[in-house]
Amino acid sequence: MITPPFKKILIANRGEIAIRITRACRELGIGSVAVFSDADRDSLHVFLADEAYHIGPSPSKESYLNYRKILDVAKQSGADAIHPGYGFLSENPTFARACKEAGIVFIGPTPENMEAMGDKLSAKAQMKKAGVPLVPGSDGAIETIEEAQEVVKKIGYPIIIKASAGGGGKGMRVVRADHELESAFRACRSEGLNYFANPAVYIERFINDPKHIEIQVFGDTHGNVVHLFERECSVQRRHQKIIEESPSPSVPNDVRLKMGDASVKAAKSINYIGAGTIEFIFDNKTKEFFFMEMNTRLQVEHPITEQVTGHDLVKEQIWVAKGNPLSFTQDEVKQTGHAIEARICAEDPETYQPHPGVIRACRHPQGPFLRMDSYAYPGYEVPIYYDPMIAKVITWGDTREEAIDRMERALSEFVLTGIKTNIVLHKTILQHPKFLDGSYTTQFIEKNFEVLEPEIFKEIEDPLFLISAAITAYQDRQSKDVRRLNVASNWRRIGRKMQLRT
Amino acid sequence: MITPPFKKILIANRGEIAIRITRACRELGIGSVAVFSDADRDSLHVFLADEAYHIGPSPSKESYLNYRKILDVAKQSGADAIHPGYGFLSENPTFARACKEAGIVFIGPTPENMEAMGDKLSAKAQMKKAGVPLVPGSDGAIETIEEAQEVVKKIGYPIIIKASAGGGGKGMRVVRADHELESAFRACRSEGLNYFANPAVYIERFINDPKHIEIQVFGDTHGNVVHLFERECSVQRRHQKIIEESPSPSVPNDVRLKMGDASVKAAKSINYIGAGTIEFIFDNKTKEFFFMEMNTRLQVEHPITEQVTGHDLVKEQIWVAKGNPLSFTQDEVKQTGHAIEARICAEDPETYQPHPGVIRACRHPQGPFLRMDSYAYPGYEVPIYYDPMIAKVITWGDTREEAIDRMERALSEFVLTGIKTNIVLHKTILQHPKFLDGSYTTQFIEKNFEVLEPEIFKEIEDPLFLISAAITAYQDRQSKDVRRLNVASNWRRIGRKMQLRT
Repeated sequence: MITPPFKKILIANRGEIAIRITRACRELGIGSVAVFSDADRDSLHVFLADEAYHIGPSPSKESYLNYRKILDVAKQSGADAIHPGYGFLSENPTFARACKEAGIVFIGPTPENMEAMGDKLSAKAQMKKAGVPLVPGSDGAIETIEEAQEVVKKIGYPIIIKASAGGGGKGMRVVRADHELESAFRACRSEGLNYFANPAVYIERFINDPKHIEIQVFGDTHGNVVHLFERECSVQRRHQKIIEESPSPSVPNDVRLKMGDASVKAAKSINYIGAGTIEFIFDNKTKEFFFMEMNTRLQVEHPITEQVTGHDLVKEQIWVAKGNPLSFTQDEVKQTGHAIEARICAEDPETYQPHPGVIRACRHPQGPFLRMDSYAYPGYEVPIYYDPMIAKVITWGDTREEAIDRMERALSEFVLTGIKTNIVLHKTILQHPKFLDGSYTTQFIEKNFEVLEPEIFKEIEDPLFLISAAITAYQDRQSKDVRRLNVASNWRRIGRKMQLRT
Repeated sequence: MITPPFKKILIANRGEIAIRITRACRELGIGSVAVFSDADRDSLHVFLADEAYHIGPSPSKESYLNYRKILDVAKQSGADAIHPGYGFLSENPTFARACKEAGIVFIGPTPENMEAMGDKLSAKAQMKKAGVPLVPGSDGAIETIEEAQEVVKKIGYPIIIKASAGGGGKGMRVVRADHELESAFRACRSEGLNYFANPAVYIERFINDPKHIEIQVFGDTHGNVVHLFERECSVQRRHQKIIEESPSPSVPNDVRLKMGDASVKAAKSINYIGAGTIEFIFDNKTKEFFFMEMNTRLQVEHPITEQVTGHDLVKEQIWVAKGNPLSFTQDEVKQTGHAIEARICAEDPETYQPHPGVIRACRHPQGPFLRMDSYAYPGYEVPIYYDPMIAKVITWGDTREEAIDRMERALSEFVLTGIKTNIVLHKTILQHPKFLDGSYTTQFIEKNFEVLEPEIFKEIEDPLFLISAAITAYQDRQSKDVRRLNVASNWRRIGRKMQLRT
């Protein structure tokens, strides 16, 4: 038995990720301290930790983002380390510094790591220096049409001209041929001037319909950095990932290794410590990849990397935060099989609007090669204050096809009633030809699912009914003293293929 | 997409294994037909299958063992194959033949395979011919004390003399030295004569305090046979396995490979088809192994093999039953990491008596590297008619230590109220030095847990309380219109390390 690296860890987060970290603590023999806002008094993360402290009102600003309060609780409870999870304070260098000053270990990268990657432009400059591929383009701002022509000569069409100070789609033009260049250049400059009081523009190659592919990296305080291969996260809606998979169906093995090498170089160049993710824009036609940004924290989708590599990333975070060298070398990281994660959200599948409420029946999928990270339980009220993701379903398969089949199977047995969820959206995505052949890009949802046909969903919604009926029958019987529903005999009415003979 | 090997499979079983098989069917695009007795009307396996048919009264003989009824349902539902699971009809050659006659594929070995291994003595003769190690001893019955002395000269002490027709402990003597031999020999002969009207005896080496180690094998109709390494199943009570693990902590790698080779030889010698298990007596002092028997079916503990090898054994059964060659070669079977299974039974942990009843709150463990195969749900009444096993918790770890830590973590978050369970027994076993160092034998439970101290359990039972309280609070609120329990504020009273400050 290895001595636990810490005595007690405060988990400065909520929901499924707080539970994930609590589990790692328990397996390592480390005490766990949960914190909770008013709205989270009955959240499962509170019940599963060894201790739990109330830290304020429901809005994040007054609780989960209130780092002074969290530090107070850490001191009060005797925690010697804090794990921030993702979101909230996880990429806040001020908090990381405050922890250090309080003599408490922040489980994550250094404040300097966060700062180096926090500003997108300086991050890109840093990456360029480290030799990581950036989207080809002008070196900073350009002033004249001749300079623009010079850049185009180097990188070719299509290009995108962007106002340096731009944003929100203003001051941007895609140019596909010479005859469009000058007018677009002038338009961008004048929009820059008009909207942002700054006529400076720069040019980048326009990557049409890209994929989002990211590499998991891990560094320690001894200068070691490894990567744990890629995750494809192109199934997104408004930059929110919905389904992730590893490996990516679109990355050839030589490119995979190049992406891994580039990511290790990137992390090494800033002496990165702990878990981090390098996000790339991926051109599926040319198989080129370009640095987008680095997330200096654990990702929501870390489980798919765990399932294909066998390494427990949260335990590893705790391990290296104590100053230990990485517990595995690059050679000990292998991708085996295929993993997919579906994010289950309390939302209306027709409008994508969050749909908080009280969960009535809840039965999670189980069985072979399936992992659930959920904080749903019957009677739990999903609060309106936070991210509507309430569960992650992760399946592993020997092949991508098997992982997909298994995910469909898993979702078919997931019962979650009382609230609306996007389970049915997932089922629809999993059957889409562009998902099945792996060619989907970040525009996949927008192009195929933005306008939803409620009928699409109804047709495949039936299986949900089955266990749901059984479980709610019990709860109804308890609550209303009604004659118990004979669920089985009601079956004939329910399903497509369902039959019952007695 | 591969064409599904069958159109529809009838699952001639109940509970968790019926669900396991239903999941494989769904993932393969095969229809699933459940059958159920009176007592199983609300069993989860009924709800998860595509179709379900009532087959008779609760006693197994009148339903799950009524193979004519089951064949009728298969024909009626249009099933083209039957999976028997384990127990019930799974090793019944008459049923397997009847399936064949009805033109329905029996997913399992041939009737000849079952018969070859069904009779223990002829199985041993067969294994001897195939060169599989048997416990050394006399070649069949011996008649005189001189013959007995001859055998002892070959195999040494300790030996056991057994009446050929014996059973139930009658007509058996362990002999540890020459001066005991003659009187023991005579006593066994006379007991044989008195109790079984047969004075014949035979001699075997007495393996003191052995382990139970078994090898998973798989054959196809093309003459291929592979093994999938071992499972250690020595944690048993009255020959019922309680905890299994793979790999065994006691088998050196060279012995592991020898056991695998011997098992492949054994299966090849009878042209074995499908999943089977060769059980060995294992002498942990000498690391010798001896054939005990072969189970010609899927085992309860097959998930630990799945988790360390990555192969889905139920899908493979279906695949080879269709006449396909095995989907993997011996070289493609690797043991990665370590898996443990804990069988959760509805039983009184103090008396080991089955404890059927209605499940009240139920929350299964989740999270990384954990698999649940359970048919428990809130409101489900565990029937008195069948095996009390209601769930299997399977954990995987990079090392044995990690798998154990993870199992302890998993059990600590398992909520199952309304019935008594052996969860607390599992927790106690996992902390026992003989389990932790891997030296436990088949006498482990008998020697260490037969007389139970209820106080042992109470002390570690607390964690169960936590989520249980939260979940039952909801159900209480529904059923009794009581003021909702403020679970969190009741905490101070509950746990050992639990605290709450607001």
